[in-house]
Amino acid sequence: MAELKPTLHHMNNSQSQRILWLLEELEIPYNLSLHKRVESGPNKSRAPPELKQTHPLGKAPQLETGDGRVIVESVVIARYLIETYDKSGKFQGDGAANDWIRDDELSNLASATISAPMSLELIFSLLTQSSPFFIRPLVSIIHKQLHKAFTGPELDMDLRYLSDQLGDQDYFMGSSPGRADFIMSWPLDLCTQNGFINLQEYPKLEAWFRRCHERPAWKRSIEKGNGYSLVFQL
Amino acid sequence: MAELKPTLHHMNNSQSQRILWLLEELEIPYNLSLHKRVESGPNKSRAPPELKQTHPLGKAPQLETGDGRVIVESVVIARYLIETYDKSGKFQGDGAANDWIRDDELSNLASATISAPMSLELIFSLLTQSSPFFIRPLVSIIHKQLHKAFTGPELDMDLRYLSDQLGDQDYFMGSSPGRADFIMSWPLDLCTQNGFINLQEYPKLEAWFRRCHERPAWKRSIEKGNGYSLVFQL
Repeated sequence: MAELKPTLHHMNNSQSQRILWLLEELEIPYNLSLHKRVESGPNKSRAPPELKQTHPLGKAPQLETGDGRVIVESVVIARYLIETYDKSGKFQGDGAANDWIRDDELSNLASATISAPMSLELIFSLLTQSSPFFIRPLVSIIHKQLHKAFTGPELDMDLRYLSDQLGDQDYFMGSSPGRADFIMSWPLDLCTQNGFINLQEYPKLEAWFRRCHERPAWKRSIEKGNGYSLVFQL
Repeated sequence: MAELKPTLHHMNNSQSQRILWLLEELEIPYNLSLHKRVESGPNKSRAPPELKQTHPLGKAPQLETGDGRVIVESVVIARYLIETYDKSGKFQGDGAANDWIRDDELSNLASATISAPMSLELIFSLLTQSSPFFIRPLVSIIHKQLHKAFTGPELDMDLRYLSDQLGDQDYFMGSSPGRADFIMSWPLDLCTQNGFINLQEYPKLEAWFRRCHERPAWKRSIEKGNGYSLVFQL
């Protein structure tokens, strides 16, 4: 019996881009179901309601496996795809001291730890943009204070740590990207596109960032997806 | 050679409580190193600087393994402890359809997905509290609008989903707590103590919550720790 293909439920301008990238790296057959963020109205920029048809949380990415199970959460989908389809172990790390603990630490750092200061920066950008003009200066002052006291130093500490973890390797997990690299791409793309961080201050990370974006599989993922602009408008 | 004991670097009023709980459930010998959040000054309520001596990110929990490796990120520490010390499989799930994918999905939902609306609620509570009195009403209005448009519905959707996932099982992973249960305790404790959610609206979750807090191991973890009050003051 031929194995059934998995289906990626992908949404434009979202973290599911990193799963699309991984699928392209794996070079396996898959179905791509493209969804678009809501374009206008009170739910502008949110996930479209049709994503609830396949999973009650209604977010992207969702991976429907060959036998019809729907998996959510990018770190889990990435682990499933690599464990299931990376028969040669190419994306499982070959650097010094790479093991599941390090992979899991870095993946969770990217998906949970960095997301706290990142979502604060994001929400304050959106709040500033959407506030009535007479409130805007005040929101902007609160944002600046929060940035100075918390989000700025926090992001800087995380990025310095990541630079050290990368060291002189091409990728976090060695000579090829591993799960941590795929997962890391989203917060760094979002923070960079929105100007929350300046990667030039972290030359090793910047070189990693360029290296990822130059990979043929990344470029194919951008062509096959339906947009990856992470500066949101309300 | 006797196996060396792991050491938990624990901080009061923090997510490391769930790891302390897990250690007590496992009933293994371990060392406990107690740390306290900064009590005054500009870094009030932040992690104390001494936590950087054992790991550059300076957060809690940190688990120092018997052979001296320091592991960070609660979900990773919990996975390591269960894989290493739970020889009987008691904490590895026995409910229907429990497997690593479901465990990992629920653990990540608790550590990453819920944390976005939760940290927004938390930061706005702190901002309201710490704003000069003439700005406070405005911050409070922004908070209410954000709650109505985003954090409220988002938390509600997550909690309904978790109720469905729990179903009629005692714990998310079956008849005993599994990794997802340990990990879930922190966001639900934080949201409940701060009044961000009302668990009475989710009776199954409320029963689960009581069930966890009645466990002897949870009670021992509270006695051995150095405080678990999650309403922060700046």
